[in-house]
Amino acid sequence: MSTDDTTESKCGASKTETSESNCGGSADASTEEKVGATVDDFDADPGSLVAVGLGPGHADGMTRRARAALHEAEHIVGYTTYIDLLPDEITDAADELYDTPMCGEVSRTEEAVDRALAGNHVAIVGSGDPNVYALGGLALEIVESKGATASALDFEVVPGVPAAQSCAARVGAPLVNDTVSISLSDHLTPMPTIESRLHAAAKEGFTITIYNPWSRKRRDNFEKCCEILLEHRDPETPVGIVHGAGREDERVEIVELGDLEALGETDLVDMTTTILVGNEDTYVWDDRMVTPRGYESKYDY
Amino acid sequence: MSTDDTTESKCGASKTETSESNCGGSADASTEEKVGATVDDFDADPGSLVAVGLGPGHADGMTRRARAALHEAEHIVGYTTYIDLLPDEITDAADELYDTPMCGEVSRTEEAVDRALAGNHVAIVGSGDPNVYALGGLALEIVESKGATASALDFEVVPGVPAAQSCAARVGAPLVNDTVSISLSDHLTPMPTIESRLHAAAKEGFTITIYNPWSRKRRDNFEKCCEILLEHRDPETPVGIVHGAGREDERVEIVELGDLEALGETDLVDMTTTILVGNEDTYVWDDRMVTPRGYESKYDY
Repeated sequence: MSTDDTTESKCGASKTETSESNCGGSADASTEEKVGATVDDFDADPGSLVAVGLGPGHADGMTRRARAALHEAEHIVGYTTYIDLLPDEITDAADELYDTPMCGEVSRTEEAVDRALAGNHVAIVGSGDPNVYALGGLALEIVESKGATASALDFEVVPGVPAAQSCAARVGAPLVNDTVSISLSDHLTPMPTIESRLHAAAKEGFTITIYNPWSRKRRDNFEKCCEILLEHRDPETPVGIVHGAGREDERVEIVELGDLEALGETDLVDMTTTILVGNEDTYVWDDRMVTPRGYESKYDY
Repeated sequence: MSTDDTTESKCGASKTETSESNCGGSADASTEEKVGATVDDFDADPGSLVAVGLGPGHADGMTRRARAALHEAEHIVGYTTYIDLLPDEITDAADELYDTPMCGEVSRTEEAVDRALAGNHVAIVGSGDPNVYALGGLALEIVESKGATASALDFEVVPGVPAAQSCAARVGAPLVNDTVSISLSDHLTPMPTIESRLHAAAKEGFTITIYNPWSRKRRDNFEKCCEILLEHRDPETPVGIVHGAGREDERVEIVELGDLEALGETDLVDMTTTILVGNEDTYVWDDRMVTPRGYESKYDY
């Protein structure tokens, strides 16, 4: 859904590590991203605002409801890469497309809200799901900050398949039990909090989906993450790595936890990569990661 | 995807608490569910097996890829409720439908595997995603136990929108940061493990999606869960409750954590309910749950 280095590093996304490294943590972002207009600046009756999750990014991964919401929208707003991923039938039908490159997620979301307050039916789009490291919440916060209400805009979230599930599907069945998602971006969450969550998740036997694993600016976070996981899990623990899923440069590999840190130095791991860490029971069989549900302890097969 | 009391209590599912309470934990299940045939019992060239996540359960929530996979399948296998949810265009096009009521997830999955080994193109379906408390892993385990391979069956997982995301969308933006999914069913995971995970998740500031929150057989688990959450979080913490999402009896409520335990005694909370627990920052505004990403600390809006 969103576009900075805190975004879901989702299957199908095509943002580049280069552009990511130009944004995200800049201290002067607050001056660039100030939100101006309030609800009183708009004379029209409000339109509507829907946050649409596109799923893995290609048209096949979109739900019918998402497709319908985009057809109903007069304006479609999003990160350039996601707008480019939309099928022509949808972009041709829209009155206006508004896309901006990475980094402008606050101003872009404000633009979407302003257009809705001005009376238009607006969809703000992103890959994955609007509730997964994405703009669903930011949209609501901006609506609130403008003195408008979600109800007045018929604010709706249309869910999509998150990267955790799109990428898990590519390596088999790595996540079938209790699971956590953790982003390694410390842009909006302090690194000590991230470290503490990694410790807890690894200690408690959760499978772990790691979003935003790596950027040039914070390679230390990835190294630290690998060290923490190895404090609690065996170096042979299977780890699924899905790079650029759904893109031309898609790569899927299953490796061992002990080898993960070194891979941070290769182009397999960047901001378009999602990493799936198995739990104590996960094993690799026939090039698939399998995390048993526990049926084998109850049933004979 | 799956059908016993360990399954995803997904938006759109329509299993009843009554039928659930008749299965799941029975000690004699192993005798009923013994898997028989092995790969050597089949003469034909193997067909294919695809595990398809239907998303929230109604046709609008399905991805185009899921729809295509079901059209390509000759046989569709699933829990009766999910087969009933499929659009007529799909069920009419299939050569055979094989559905069984709740509780038979192992024998049903074996049936799907056997049909694939016998040379058919088989889809096994469930709501939500095949990687979320579902049959993706069980299918692989059964293929392995029969001496076949996933590659020989072109085994594929087609992801769907999980209940966490379908239900989160209905209450706003409750899950936008690091998040965990925990099932309260102790059929396949021991209760001390579940309790320890709840402690860790609540202590570490994760938002929490609770699957399978309640059944008559294990109301204690729900009470214990509420107590644990209250040890770490304020009684005013917002909690989203989505009952029977996408069904005629759908109900969506946002309550406070301190009131959750008492709701276990009402029909709002049963096995068709998904519960979304906010973190320390989550607030309720205009009937929506909002978990801030943290942008407000970086940007001025």
